[in-house]
Amino acid sequence: MNVSKGITPRAKDFAQWYNDVIMRAELADYAPVRGCMVIRPWGFRIWELMQQGLDGMFKATGHQNAYFPLLIPQSFLEKEAEHVEGFAPETAVVTRAGGKELEEPLVVRPTSETIIYAMLTKWIQSYRDLPVLLNQWVNVVRWEMRTRLFIRTTEFLWQEGHTAHATQEEAEEETKRMLGVYRTFMEEWMALPVLTGVKTPLEKFAGAVRTYAVEGLMQDNRALQLGTSHFLGQNFAKAFGTQFQTAEGGMEYVWSTSWGASTRLIGGLIMAHSDDIGLICPPKLAPLQVIVVPIWKTAEDRTKVMEVAAQIRQELAQSDIRVDVDQRDGMKPGAKYYEWEGRGVPVRLEIGPRDVAGSQAMLARRTGGKEPVPLEDVVQLVGKALDDIQTGLCETARERREAESLRGATKDQLIERMEGRAGFVYAGFCGSEACELAIKERTKATIRVLPDVEFQSAETPSECVWCGEKATTEAVWAKAY
Amino acid sequence: MNVSKGITPRAKDFAQWYNDVIMRAELADYAPVRGCMVIRPWGFRIWELMQQGLDGMFKATGHQNAYFPLLIPQSFLEKEAEHVEGFAPETAVVTRAGGKELEEPLVVRPTSETIIYAMLTKWIQSYRDLPVLLNQWVNVVRWEMRTRLFIRTTEFLWQEGHTAHATQEEAEEETKRMLGVYRTFMEEWMALPVLTGVKTPLEKFAGAVRTYAVEGLMQDNRALQLGTSHFLGQNFAKAFGTQFQTAEGGMEYVWSTSWGASTRLIGGLIMAHSDDIGLICPPKLAPLQVIVVPIWKTAEDRTKVMEVAAQIRQELAQSDIRVDVDQRDGMKPGAKYYEWEGRGVPVRLEIGPRDVAGSQAMLARRTGGKEPVPLEDVVQLVGKALDDIQTGLCETARERREAESLRGATKDQLIERMEGRAGFVYAGFCGSEACELAIKERTKATIRVLPDVEFQSAETPSECVWCGEKATTEAVWAKAY
Repeated sequence: MNVSKGITPRAKDFAQWYNDVIMRAELADYAPVRGCMVIRPWGFRIWELMQQGLDGMFKATGHQNAYFPLLIPQSFLEKEAEHVEGFAPETAVVTRAGGKELEEPLVVRPTSETIIYAMLTKWIQSYRDLPVLLNQWVNVVRWEMRTRLFIRTTEFLWQEGHTAHATQEEAEEETKRMLGVYRTFMEEWMALPVLTGVKTPLEKFAGAVRTYAVEGLMQDNRALQLGTSHFLGQNFAKAFGTQFQTAEGGMEYVWSTSWGASTRLIGGLIMAHSDDIGLICPPKLAPLQVIVVPIWKTAEDRTKVMEVAAQIRQELAQSDIRVDVDQRDGMKPGAKYYEWEGRGVPVRLEIGPRDVAGSQAMLARRTGGKEPVPLEDVVQLVGKALDDIQTGLCETARERREAESLRGATKDQLIERMEGRAGFVYAGFCGSEACELAIKERTKATIRVLPDVEFQSAETPSECVWCGEKATTEAVWAKAY
Repeated sequence: MNVSKGITPRAKDFAQWYNDVIMRAELADYAPVRGCMVIRPWGFRIWELMQQGLDGMFKATGHQNAYFPLLIPQSFLEKEAEHVEGFAPETAVVTRAGGKELEEPLVVRPTSETIIYAMLTKWIQSYRDLPVLLNQWVNVVRWEMRTRLFIRTTEFLWQEGHTAHATQEEAEEETKRMLGVYRTFMEEWMALPVLTGVKTPLEKFAGAVRTYAVEGLMQDNRALQLGTSHFLGQNFAKAFGTQFQTAEGGMEYVWSTSWGASTRLIGGLIMAHSDDIGLICPPKLAPLQVIVVPIWKTAEDRTKVMEVAAQIRQELAQSDIRVDVDQRDGMKPGAKYYEWEGRGVPVRLEIGPRDVAGSQAMLARRTGGKEPVPLEDVVQLVGKALDDIQTGLCETARERREAESLRGATKDQLIERMEGRAGFVYAGFCGSEACELAIKERTKATIRVLPDVEFQSAETPSECVWCGEKATTEAVWAKAY
């Protein structure tokens, strides 16, 4: 609908490039409400496919969807001290409704722990009622000062999982299980290899005992937190009195978790894979996986070419490939290529009269490369191309991440990196808030995670990168969105 | 989780029965926020299945999903005079956010025409950009005074379709097409035969030129509006300046429609089919279509019975039947039957040691009847039972509707009906607001629709049922939710 515009190269201005890609692919647009966006059909279709993928994994791990109210009494937020301190400053508050001032203001949910624990207290009586494994797909509002489409918007869409368990062990297991689900989704669907680990107390969720996170590395070498999984201990259970009768007859507070991922994932997808032509979308999440572009000059050719195009569409659709034919008249093939490349369609099939005569089509990959394919093998070869693109994107992103990770960094190297190339910097950490804050102050880098075992360096750092004291752990620093 | 309670019979107190059914099936619960509800997993699964059904039909008719912001500047609502008059009194308003008073209050969307037309004005330039066929699945808030679970809640979930067209004819066609989609969904998925037609100006959507509706008849003989489809003319286009360049080069305002259905559908489903035992759910929308209840006394029997139960589950699941096995120990079969009946599972398969020996199971239908089925035919016979239940529910509801419809009513009959039995009353109508209001005042009945052709009486009424003047149309009165 909008006239396509040129895209600022990444190397020139990454933030502008990001916005240009979004506009050209018609993924989203700025809304006439501060910090809010409209998710346009092409962007929303990616979100629907993400939802399908994640929701299937949530259900396979025993979770059920539900829906809790948007508006939360302000007093609920205040029941968990850390929680209200973290969220109150960024809430939007309904003070008037039905033409009257409300007696108690209602907060537009920034997250739903409080309203959910108010209900769980009512529903849970005995150990037989546990575990409770819930999830909801909803909108939330956080009044952010600096916003960016998909990455940080005043309102965003997300899922929030909330679970309650009889034991600490079970809740801790659940926290890690869901971190693993996110990681699998990001690697297998988004083609985005992530780094996982635990947050420092400074960076954890307000109200959690411990926060785990999945972090992706974007093409500008900044980190993006893509999902978090919180072990909440008994914090919310105590704040809301969520107790159960144990098998032995005593009363205990439930142990709980929450975990979330949002439309920010779309921002991560864009920044991880796209190029200066526009969006590159992993095939598993592409609204269209294949666009067929018929090429003709005469009316006679048009009939022939359209017939073959329609047939290809039917065959691909029957194999559950998302495909369409660009039948628009009065538009040159080159203009069509340009449009679908900008929208990130992974495979283009071009069919002209000579292709029809030779029973073939030209298969062009959004990630580069073009080859003729015999029509009789088109389903198989398109399927293979889609698989290759999916795998290739993940491999490229993994190589980038490794190439842009520095391990065993010294203080000077940490500073130098954060002043220039950035990326993930692994180094020793003494665990003190003082060092963490000093590094942030000096370099603008934050500890993204204390990495999980498999991401830890072969040689465990012995000294804190900042103070030189004994390191208690390895940490990964990056400049983050 | 909650202890099951007895259900008030319909004949004794229909409203209490309705709430009891919801609580017993754990479909929803009251939230600690005025007029709001929590949709529990069993209720939300029904909503997910409804969404799948409707969304498939929306996509098959060319619509795409998108997402527009929750918060709408108050000034937007004021741009369409009738619209603001209709909705302003029931809005919830955010006046404070991020710790500050807002310069312009933001309304929590009661419906999204205004924010959507603000965007369409930006996106639509030429006739080539038309039609725009959008839909969104979202939450909305309307500050209602008297609320009832699912039927009328302060916050509810719905879909709202919004389309813009180059011509009046196209927009009118779309309005009727979507009315037809709703009707098909309600009949084929909800097993609920509905009445369709156009609303009187008194009852139309604030801002529409014409509103069409689908109306269902509940078991207490009150009508429930289940969905509406609005022809908006150029009202919102003019309010927001949504113009396009025509093929001839002139400028014209777009013609538009909107249409919506909400979680109220779940309320309609309950009130149309359920009985004094609890929920009856049409198989197409049942979270579980089949519950397998194994019966055993000895550990040896348990092993045998469980093995067969697991096998049946696998076979049914492979045929895309939603099935589970109730494996709970320490719970009598009768208690399990009671629970799953209350939850509305259409088919129960009981398997005891003697059934295993005889290679059979007992198939019990939620709608009544029980028969042995050979295990080798279980998939086929369960499938047939589900089809029969779906068809049977629709047939029963259709017969009820016909039996409770009075055609060619006189004034006395209209009054008498509305004082007692209620139901749909067809009669002549002069078209005057005076008569419409007088009838409402006297009988509490409203005109649900001026019925579409196929619902009209064979003999067209010649006189207005109230004033006796010439009838301009036939109308259908009912007491409504």
